[in-house]
Amino acid sequence: MTSTAAQITYLSGSPTGAILTKSSTRVLGEREVLVRVTHSGLCGTDVHDRTAGCGLGHEGVGVVERVGADVGSVNAGERVGWGWQFSSCGYCRECISGYRQYCPESKGQKYGETEQGAFGDFVVKDQDFVYHVPVEIESRFAGPLMCAGITVFEALDVAGAKPSDRVGVVGFGGLGHLAVLYARAMGCETVVFSRSTGKRDDALKCGATEFYVVPEAGGKLDVEVGVDVLLLCGNGLPDFELFMPVLARRATIVPLIIQGEPLVIPYMPFMLPGHRIIASTEASRRNHIDALTFAARHNIRPWIQEFPMSEAGLARALDLLEQGKIKYRAVLTVGLSEDVLNKY
Amino acid sequence: MTSTAAQITYLSGSPTGAILTKSSTRVLGEREVLVRVTHSGLCGTDVHDRTAGCGLGHEGVGVVERVGADVGSVNAGERVGWGWQFSSCGYCRECISGYRQYCPESKGQKYGETEQGAFGDFVVKDQDFVYHVPVEIESRFAGPLMCAGITVFEALDVAGAKPSDRVGVVGFGGLGHLAVLYARAMGCETVVFSRSTGKRDDALKCGATEFYVVPEAGGKLDVEVGVDVLLLCGNGLPDFELFMPVLARRATIVPLIIQGEPLVIPYMPFMLPGHRIIASTEASRRNHIDALTFAARHNIRPWIQEFPMSEAGLARALDLLEQGKIKYRAVLTVGLSEDVLNKY
Repeated sequence: MTSTAAQITYLSGSPTGAILTKSSTRVLGEREVLVRVTHSGLCGTDVHDRTAGCGLGHEGVGVVERVGADVGSVNAGERVGWGWQFSSCGYCRECISGYRQYCPESKGQKYGETEQGAFGDFVVKDQDFVYHVPVEIESRFAGPLMCAGITVFEALDVAGAKPSDRVGVVGFGGLGHLAVLYARAMGCETVVFSRSTGKRDDALKCGATEFYVVPEAGGKLDVEVGVDVLLLCGNGLPDFELFMPVLARRATIVPLIIQGEPLVIPYMPFMLPGHRIIASTEASRRNHIDALTFAARHNIRPWIQEFPMSEAGLARALDLLEQGKIKYRAVLTVGLSEDVLNKY
Repeated sequence: MTSTAAQITYLSGSPTGAILTKSSTRVLGEREVLVRVTHSGLCGTDVHDRTAGCGLGHEGVGVVERVGADVGSVNAGERVGWGWQFSSCGYCRECISGYRQYCPESKGQKYGETEQGAFGDFVVKDQDFVYHVPVEIESRFAGPLMCAGITVFEALDVAGAKPSDRVGVVGFGGLGHLAVLYARAMGCETVVFSRSTGKRDDALKCGATEFYVVPEAGGKLDVEVGVDVLLLCGNGLPDFELFMPVLARRATIVPLIIQGEPLVIPYMPFMLPGHRIIASTEASRRNHIDALTFAARHNIRPWIQEFPMSEAGLARALDLLEQGKIKYRAVLTVGLSEDVLNKY
């Protein structure tokens, strides 16, 4: 490795869905840092991007190996994490008001720079897109916080969730279980809605105070006290006919799902109680930091299953995630034996 | 009229749509006031309620004739206005936090007490549901502020509209023209979207800075700078495919329409820029007052057409409103000659 160029290997998807090891050479820019990856969480977006031919993984954690000449916020040897977004313009109305995730020039996995990913040995990141990981949080737990964790934290923030609120969480998976962990730590009552009866015990262990099995269309959810905030964390949009009666007055719905169907909301049941729907994608820079600090302070740890950082490890984890069998976030860990795969 | 009972005559709809004069007797409660009506604006809701058999009119203005024993906030001889809502429970979470319009027990025209309306000679109202009209505002102009005015004021408030924002107004009628008048007075740039080319001049006279004719489905709106707030004031929901590209990042859509079709929003175009949809029906008690104060301070006057306060006057105004021919709010005025009807 010369003083400016870095050799990177990374795990990439491919048109067939096979996971391939690829490599690229990156010249480290003056404001960039080279990070040696140790862990990365696996997000539903990686399933979407499996056949896109890009480097996968955006819940990365590692140790800074080297920094560019103008880097001031991080130093070699420090432990950092990073998420989906890796750049924004820096000067639009969104960027300058702290909402760079909504910059029209925002770029992340698959968009812009595809020849690296958190599933690999090194990544090169702009210093403004890496975050110090608090010492209290082990790296394997920090990974899933970098996308799933910060996403639910941001959603609770934009919803204006108060500790006295009842927070409903639709879908109890990677996002959903973290939503419960965060909302519970914020003092909120948490109410889980899931299609799987089998998730009841885990939801309650995570701190949910109530658990409801979502019935088929035409059914009814019998919830005595309405929820003030409803986070949509499932794989697809729920049947809103079912969920409108579950809401308190002036409730806030925050969809956190990536999917293509239109949002279809019963109109007058939305209007008369004064509800709101707020889009939230990922977190602001500030909320990346606050979500990590809050997790450290309140001992928020995702429930994870570890896989080796390898082609086989990623392929297996992706398969299980697609089948809905991960409880509740897969993490690929450098140095973990392939034998671990026999567990799953 | 005895000291406690009041004889009221009012204009009611009927199953055939004919307007009938009816009467009722009301015992004035201890916290109620008897108001002699002088004016009332005509709202689209009256068109909806024409065949419901209830007293019509909820943009009333008049002079307090008599007050109940426990009335403290208004006195006989004072000029007041009132809107759609006439009661709420007073102790639920919504009522006690200033949002009584979302009280589950909220009642208004057609719901609860149907034997009076602002189209009549007298009304009996709870003291907490009448508002002093600032001296600067003539009663005929105050009427339309009591529902249309406070509604757009509330919408701009819940949207968090800032003076530096661009406010889009879809539909330029009773609500829409007041939205332009208010938003303009708040310092906002206002952008009108209408299906009628013919409304351009009036929109610009009201203070709109831009006017766009809404094309048919499949068309395109060519708006150079996105709007931060979009108020939906038309008769039905717009085609959101058309309007998503018109929005700035993190824009707020506030529907203000009563209709039965579901809200259908293109999902990813809503999510990626971080938009919000906020339901807003009518105003909080505070915003009723603030909307009137603000109108007085900024000389906000609805554009009105006056009709006599009579069966014929109401029937004609309702017909014209249904045909989309009112420019831009009908007001029924006590004492106005029936000859005025020859104008329309």
